[in-house]
Amino acid sequence: MLHCGGLKKRLIRSLMQLKVPSTIREDDLLNNLFDLKGFELAAHNKLSKATHAFFAGGAGEGITLNENVSAFDDLKLLPRILRDVQERSLSTTLLNERIDFPLLIAPMAFQCLAHPEGEVATTKAAQEHNIPMVVSTCSTCSFEEIKVQTTIAPWLQLYIYKDREITKNLIQLAEASGYKGIVLTVDAPLYGKRINELHHPLTLPLDFEIKNLQNAGLNLKDIPSSKLASTLASLLDPSLTWNDIDWLRSITGLPLILKGIMNPKDIQIAQVHDIETLIISNHGGRQLDTSLSALETLKLMRGLDKGKMEFILDGGVRKGVDILKALALGAKAVMVGRPILWGLAVGGEDGVKKVLAILKAELDLAMALCGYTSINQINEEVLYFPG
Amino acid sequence: MLHCGGLKKRLIRSLMQLKVPSTIREDDLLNNLFDLKGFELAAHNKLSKATHAFFAGGAGEGITLNENVSAFDDLKLLPRILRDVQERSLSTTLLNERIDFPLLIAPMAFQCLAHPEGEVATTKAAQEHNIPMVVSTCSTCSFEEIKVQTTIAPWLQLYIYKDREITKNLIQLAEASGYKGIVLTVDAPLYGKRINELHHPLTLPLDFEIKNLQNAGLNLKDIPSSKLASTLASLLDPSLTWNDIDWLRSITGLPLILKGIMNPKDIQIAQVHDIETLIISNHGGRQLDTSLSALETLKLMRGLDKGKMEFILDGGVRKGVDILKALALGAKAVMVGRPILWGLAVGGEDGVKKVLAILKAELDLAMALCGYTSINQINEEVLYFPG
Amino acid sequence: MLHCGGLKKRLIRSLMQLKVPSTIREDDLLNNLFDLKGFELAAHNKLSKATHAFFAGGAGEGITLNENVSAFDDLKLLPRILRDVQERSLSTTLLNERIDFPLLIAPMAFQCLAHPEGEVATTKAAQEHNIPMVVSTCSTCSFEEIKVQTTIAPWLQLYIYKDREITKNLIQLAEASGYKGIVLTVDAPLYGKRINELHHPLTLPLDFEIKNLQNAGLNLKDIPSSKLASTLASLLDPSLTWNDIDWLRSITGLPLILKGIMNPKDIQIAQVHDIETLIISNHGGRQLDTSLSALETLKLMRGLDKGKMEFILDGGVRKGVDILKALALGAKAVMVGRPILWGLAVGGEDGVKKVLAILKAELDLAMALCGYTSINQINEEVLYFPG
Amino acid sequence: MLHCGGLKKRLIRSLMQLKVPSTIREDDLLNNLFDLKGFELAAHNKLSKATHAFFAGGAGEGITLNENVSAFDDLKLLPRILRDVQERSLSTTLLNERIDFPLLIAPMAFQCLAHPEGEVATTKAAQEHNIPMVVSTCSTCSFEEIKVQTTIAPWLQLYIYKDREITKNLIQLAEASGYKGIVLTVDAPLYGKRINELHHPLTLPLDFEIKNLQNAGLNLKDIPSSKLASTLASLLDPSLTWNDIDWLRSITGLPLILKGIMNPKDIQIAQVHDIETLIISNHGGRQLDTSLSALETLKLMRGLDKGKMEFILDGGVRKGVDILKALALGAKAVMVGRPILWGLAVGGEDGVKKVLAILKAELDLAMALCGYTSINQINEEVLYFPG
Repeated sequence: MLHCGGLKKRLIRSLMQLKVPSTIREDDLLNNLFDLKGFELAAHNKLSKATHAFFAGGAGEGITLNENVSAFDDLKLLPRILRDVQERSLSTTLLNERIDFPLLIAPMAFQCLAHPEGEVATTKAAQEHNIPMVVSTCSTCSFEEIKVQTTIAPWLQLYIYKDREITKNLIQLAEASGYKGIVLTVDAPLYGKRINELHHPLTLPLDFEIKNLQNAGLNLKDIPSSKLASTLASLLDPSLTWNDIDWLRSITGLPLILKGIMNPKDIQIAQVHDIETLIISNHGGRQLDTSLSALETLKLMRGLDKGKMEFILDGGVRKGVDILKALALGAKAVMVGRPILWGLAVGGEDGVKKVLAILKAELDLAMALCGYTSINQINEEVLYFPG
Repeated sequence: MLHCGGLKKRLIRSLMQLKVPSTIREDDLLNNLFDLKGFELAAHNKLSKATHAFFAGGAGEGITLNENVSAFDDLKLLPRILRDVQERSLSTTLLNERIDFPLLIAPMAFQCLAHPEGEVATTKAAQEHNIPMVVSTCSTCSFEEIKVQTTIAPWLQLYIYKDREITKNLIQLAEASGYKGIVLTVDAPLYGKRINELHHPLTLPLDFEIKNLQNAGLNLKDIPSSKLASTLASLLDPSLTWNDIDWLRSITGLPLILKGIMNPKDIQIAQVHDIETLIISNHGGRQLDTSLSALETLKLMRGLDKGKMEFILDGGVRKGVDILKALALGAKAVMVGRPILWGLAVGGEDGVKKVLAILKAELDLAMALCGYTSINQINEEVLYFPG
Repeated sequence: MLHCGGLKKRLIRSLMQLKVPSTIREDDLLNNLFDLKGFELAAHNKLSKATHAFFAGGAGEGITLNENVSAFDDLKLLPRILRDVQERSLSTTLLNERIDFPLLIAPMAFQCLAHPEGEVATTKAAQEHNIPMVVSTCSTCSFEEIKVQTTIAPWLQLYIYKDREITKNLIQLAEASGYKGIVLTVDAPLYGKRINELHHPLTLPLDFEIKNLQNAGLNLKDIPSSKLASTLASLLDPSLTWNDIDWLRSITGLPLILKGIMNPKDIQIAQVHDIETLIISNHGGRQLDTSLSALETLKLMRGLDKGKMEFILDGGVRKGVDILKALALGAKAVMVGRPILWGLAVGGEDGVKKVLAILKAELDLAMALCGYTSINQINEEVLYFPG
Repeated sequence: MLHCGGLKKRLIRSLMQLKVPSTIREDDLLNNLFDLKGFELAAHNKLSKATHAFFAGGAGEGITLNENVSAFDDLKLLPRILRDVQERSLSTTLLNERIDFPLLIAPMAFQCLAHPEGEVATTKAAQEHNIPMVVSTCSTCSFEEIKVQTTIAPWLQLYIYKDREITKNLIQLAEASGYKGIVLTVDAPLYGKRINELHHPLTLPLDFEIKNLQNAGLNLKDIPSSKLASTLASLLDPSLTWNDIDWLRSITGLPLILKGIMNPKDIQIAQVHDIETLIISNHGGRQLDTSLSALETLKLMRGLDKGKMEFILDGGVRKGVDILKALALGAKAVMVGRPILWGLAVGGEDGVKKVLAILKAELDLAMALCGYTSINQINEEVLYFPG
C-alpha cells in the first residue's frame, strides 16, 4: 500500500491529544466509553478496513476532514457566571416541531455495514432523544421500515438523479411514509475523490440491498457488488441548477432544505429562492479537500443579513461544547454524522443511544458552565474573537 | 482492548520514553530538581494513576489545561538594561497584608492524597515564605489544624452548597480559626467533565476524612468511598446568582473574592457589586475545556477601566517569569496550584518549600534581568505585542 | 559516525516507517497509484539515492521546497453550487495555441536518469494530453528527437551561458526543430546550494550525453562524469541584465517567457520590457531557500495592474485543486515538474501519462465541485481570504 | 535525570528538518560537512555532556534559544533578478576598519574546553577571513596570546565586575595588547538560569586557567574547579547603570559597544548617551527565556530613527542567508557564536575556518541570488512582510 498522504502531519497533531485506552472487556465496552473519541477508536477496531475507509475517510488528504473538527477547538470561550443555571432546557424546534436538543442525525449511506440493524437501530436511538433522523437516499432499510420506529418524522436526504422519475418516486415513497422534509444535497454534482476508498474498495455482503432505490424503480440486481458504488456515483446529475429547486417544489409540498452550501453568494441566491433552512456543510470533508471547515464557514456568515433563513451546521461536531459554539455563531442546530456510525458499530441501537446521550449531557453541562439555561439564550458573547 | 494502530502506538511509546526519568536516588531527589517541570515528572512517578488523574487532569481533552501553560511562553519579553537592580524586593500586599512575594497557594482538595500531612505541610511551607494559603472547602485537614501552622492567616475557598446552613457553618468555622478572606468559587455551578477521572476513579483510603464538611454538619459517614466525589459534586448549587453574593456579605464581614471570572461583562457586574478582588481563572482547565487560557483572558482586560478592583491570575504559572508577565499585564498576584501538589507528593513540606523557593528565586532573577527592583515597577513596557 | 541522540533516532525511525510502502506487485503498480503522493513514494523506492537527491532535493533545508506545496493546502475554498456543471471544458490557450488543460511540463534536466527513454517518453505523454513540454537546455535527448514525438510544439528552456555563441546555437537548434517559445531562466545567475546533492553526488552512466549542449558546440567529452554537474553550473552567466533580454530578442523571433520572477518590482520592469508571459517561480525551491512560496508570491500580485501580461505559476502543484487555486489567483496556467519525473521513473511514458491524467481528472472534478464549467470562469470568489 | 522541558515540542519541530547523517570516517569529517547543521551534530558527538550543555544550552526551556534560529527561517525572501551579479564584494567596515565580510566572532568563554588551542585557534581562523574576534573576559588564553595571531585587532568583551579595579585592569591589559573596542555586556546583571548546566555541572581540567582575570588581579587559585562558574557569576555587578558607561569612557578611549540591548526605550537612552554601536542580543537565549528572538527584535527597530547608531545582530545566525536578512533589516553586521565552537570542537583552527568559509560562501551566493553585488545594496525590498 503506497498511500500515506498527510499522515505524518496528522499523526503528530493527534499524538498531542490521543490517550492510549487501556484494556477493556468487550462486554463492558459501552460502560467504559465516556466521550466520542473513545467511540471512534473502538469502532476503528471493530470495522473492516474497507468499511472504515468508506465511513471515516475524506476527500484528498483529509485536510478539511480534520479541520472540520479542529476548528471547534480553535474557537475559545469566555464563560459567564452566577446566572442561576439550575433549571435548564435544551429543547428547541426544527421545521416547527419540538425536539429534545438541537441535533439531527446526518444522512449516511449503507448503515447496515456498521450493524445488521442499520438505520432501524439508528432511528430507534434518535427516537429516544426525540430528534429527527435524516435518512439517506442510499439507506439500506426502506423508508417505511425506518419510519415505523419513530414518532418524530424522519427527513429524507435526496440526490436528484439524472433519471427524474426515480427522484420523483423517492419523494413519493418518503411522503407516503410520513417524512417531514426534504434535504437536498447540493454539493455533489460529482462524487468526491476519496483516496482511502480507492485503496480499500468496499466489498458488500451478498444480501446487500438499497431498498429505497430499488423501490423507486432502479434495477440494481444485475450490478455486481464491486461496481455498486461507482454505479451510484454515476447516477448523480451534475446539471442541477436553481431551476431544479423550483421543479422539486412543484412536485412536493414538503419543506425543502439545502445541504452543502458554503459560499456567501449562494446564501444570497438561496434567500432569493425563499429557502428557509440551509445546511452549512462540506459533506463531512468528503467532496472537495481544502474546502473551508464548516465552523469557519459559519463564522464567515456572521455579518450577513439572514432574514428568515435558518442555518444548520454539519461537520466536525464531536463534543457538546461544539454544539454550543455552533449555536453561539448563529446556527439553529447541528448535524452529527460519523460518531453515530461509531456508536452503531460498537453497540448497535444502544451504542447510538449512548453517543447521543453523551452529546446531550455535554451540551447541557456546557450551557450551565457558560451561564445559559435555554437554547435561545446562547449567543456570541461567550465567544472569544482574537484581534 | 481498544487500540489505535501499531504505528501510532509505536510513536506514542517513543514520546512516552521522553518522559520516563532515569534513576535518581530517592533521598537525593529534591536536590536534583531545579524547576517545576522536574517536580511534575517526579510526582507523576510517585502518585497512583487515579490520584494523578484527579490532581493533574483537566476537563475534556485538556486543551485549556495545556494552553494555560503555553500562553505564558507565547508572550515574549523585551528586557530593560542598566537600571541598578542590586537591591530588589519582591514584597507586596494582598488584602492589606504584607507578603513575601505575589503568590498564593491555590485551593486544592484532598491534599492528604499527595502526602499524609496534607494541607498542614502545605501551610507550613507557605508560612516560611510568608504567603497565604487558600484552603479548600474540601481540605482533608480542619481549618483549625491548618491555621495553627501559620501566622499569616489563610483564606477560605468556599463553595455555596445547596444546603445554605452548611455553607454558613463553614464560614463560621473559618472565621473562628482566624481566616482572612473568602474566595468564592463562581465557575462551578456543576462539576466539569474530566475524562481522566472517569477512566481512573479515585479510591480513597479507609480513614479518609473531609473534616471541615463534617464539622459543618454534613454527614459523610455512610457514603461509600467510591461515591464520595460524585456526592460532593451533587452538593454544588447551580442556582447561584449575584444575589447570593449579597447574602454572603450579610453573614460575614470577611473580604469577598470571586474566583473563576472570565468574561469582561461579568467584570463589569462585579464592579457594580463592589467586589474588589477578582481571580481570573478557568479552574485550572478543569471545568469547561476550550475556555480561553487564563493569561489571554487577563490580556483581554488590558483596556478595561478597573477602578479599585484588583486581579489575581490563576492558571498555568510554572516559572518565575510567568509571574512577572501576569504582573506586567496588570495582575496584583498569581495563584499556583498543581505544582504545589507535585512538591507535596515528592517531598512533603520540604517539597512545597522547594517549589516555592524556586518560583521566588526565578521571579527575583526575572525581575533583575528585566530591570525591575520592586513589584510595583513591573509594567507592560517589557512585553512584546506583535502587530 | 555522526549521530543525533538515541531518542531522536528512534523517533525518526518510527516516522520513516510511515514512509516504507508495503509490497505491491511491480506489474500492478501503476494501477494502484491514485494520486501524485503515491507516485512520489514509489519513485523514491525506485531511484538511486543520488538520483533521487538530484531530482527531489531543494536548496538549504528545503523550507521553500516544502512551503511551495503546503501553501496550496493553506488556501481554503468556498465552493459554489447548483450551476449546471455537466458539460465542462478544461481547454485553454497558451501562446495562442489551444491546449487540453492549463498545464505545462516544467523544464527538468537529465530525464534519462529517471527512465532510459528520458524526454522522449515525457513528450509522448504530454502529446497525448495536447500540452506543451518545456525542454531543458540540459535535456539528454536532442531537441529534434523530442520534437518528432509531438504535434504541439515544445518550448525551449534556456540558460544564457557565458559563451553567447553556444546560447545562440541552442536557440537555432530549437528553432530548426520548430520550437514554439523561449523560456529564459532568470533566477540562476549561480547554482543554488543543494545540501542533498552535496551529500549524494550524482554518478552518471558511461554513455551519458547532453546532446543539445554538445550539438551547440560545447565539448563535454573530456569532462569526467563526476565533474559534469559543477562544469555545467560554472557555465551560468551571473552578469545577465535586462539588456540581455533585448539581445535575445534581436537574435530570435520566438516569444520570450521569463522563468523565475518573484519580486513585484521586477514584474514592473518586465512590463516596461514588454514581456508578456512571466513564470512566477522559485526554481522549485532549488535556488535560494526561504524564498517565499510560489503560490504566496502569486497572491502578492493580486492588486497589481498586469496589463497584457500573463502569469504562469511554477512550484508545488501536486493536485488538481492546486491548479484551480493558481488560476483563481490569476495564473493563466501552471507548470509541473518533479511529479512528472516520478511518473517517468515509475512507469516511463505510461507513468507520465497517468500522472497527467490524474491531474487533469482532479482539476476537472475540482472545477465541477466549485461550480465552474470552463477555465476562464475560475476566479477569486471561491477562495477564502481570512481576516 | 528528570529534566525534559519543552523537549517533546522541540523534537517534533526538529524532526521535520533533521537529516540523519550517514557514517563518515573521522579523518574525512571536515570534508563531509557542508553546512552548520552538520557541524552542530558532529560537535554534539565529540563534546562531553557537560561541556556541550555549557556551550549549547540556553536559559529555561530554550524557547528563545530556538526562536533565535527559527525567526530567520520565518522571514521570507522575494529575490531580484537580472542585475549583473558577476562581480561581488562582501567587504564592509566596522569601527572604521575594513573587514572581509560583515561578521564578528561572538565572545564565548572557556574555548579551550572545545579544543586545546582555544581562542588562539579561533583567532587564527578569524584572521584568515580578516574579521574581528571579540574576546571574552573569560577567555582561557591571554589577550596577548590571542592578539599576536592576528593583524586585525580583536575587541574586548567586558563584564563590569563589582571590583572596579579588576575591570580597569582588564581594559588596560586589552589596550596594551592593541585591542580595538570594548563590547560591554549589559544584559547580565545576574547569571541566567540554565537548566542543562544545573543538570550537568562543568568539571574543569586541572590545568584550567582564566588568564586575563588572573592577570587582572583576581585570585582564582584557591577556588575549586567545581565552584569556578558560580564564583565568576557572583562577581557580576547588578548595580550597573548608564552612569557606569560614563565612568568607562573616562578610563578608556576605545570605542564602546553595548551588547544585549533589546527594548526600544533603551535604544533611545543609548542614543542620548552617544553610543554609536549597539548589539541587539538576548545573550544567545542564555539569560532570560522567552525574550523575543534577536531577529524579531531587530525587525521591531525598523521604524526607529537610528541617527548615527549602528546595529549588530547577535543570535541565531546559522546560514549565509541569515546574514543577508539581518542586513536587509538594517544591521551593519552579525555576530556568530555557538557555530564557531562547533567548528573548533570538530577541527580546531581548520574547523573554525571551514565554518567561516561556509557562512561567507553562503552569504555571497545569497547576495547573488537576491541581485546584490555589494553589502551596502542590501535592503528591505527583498523581504516579504505579510499582511
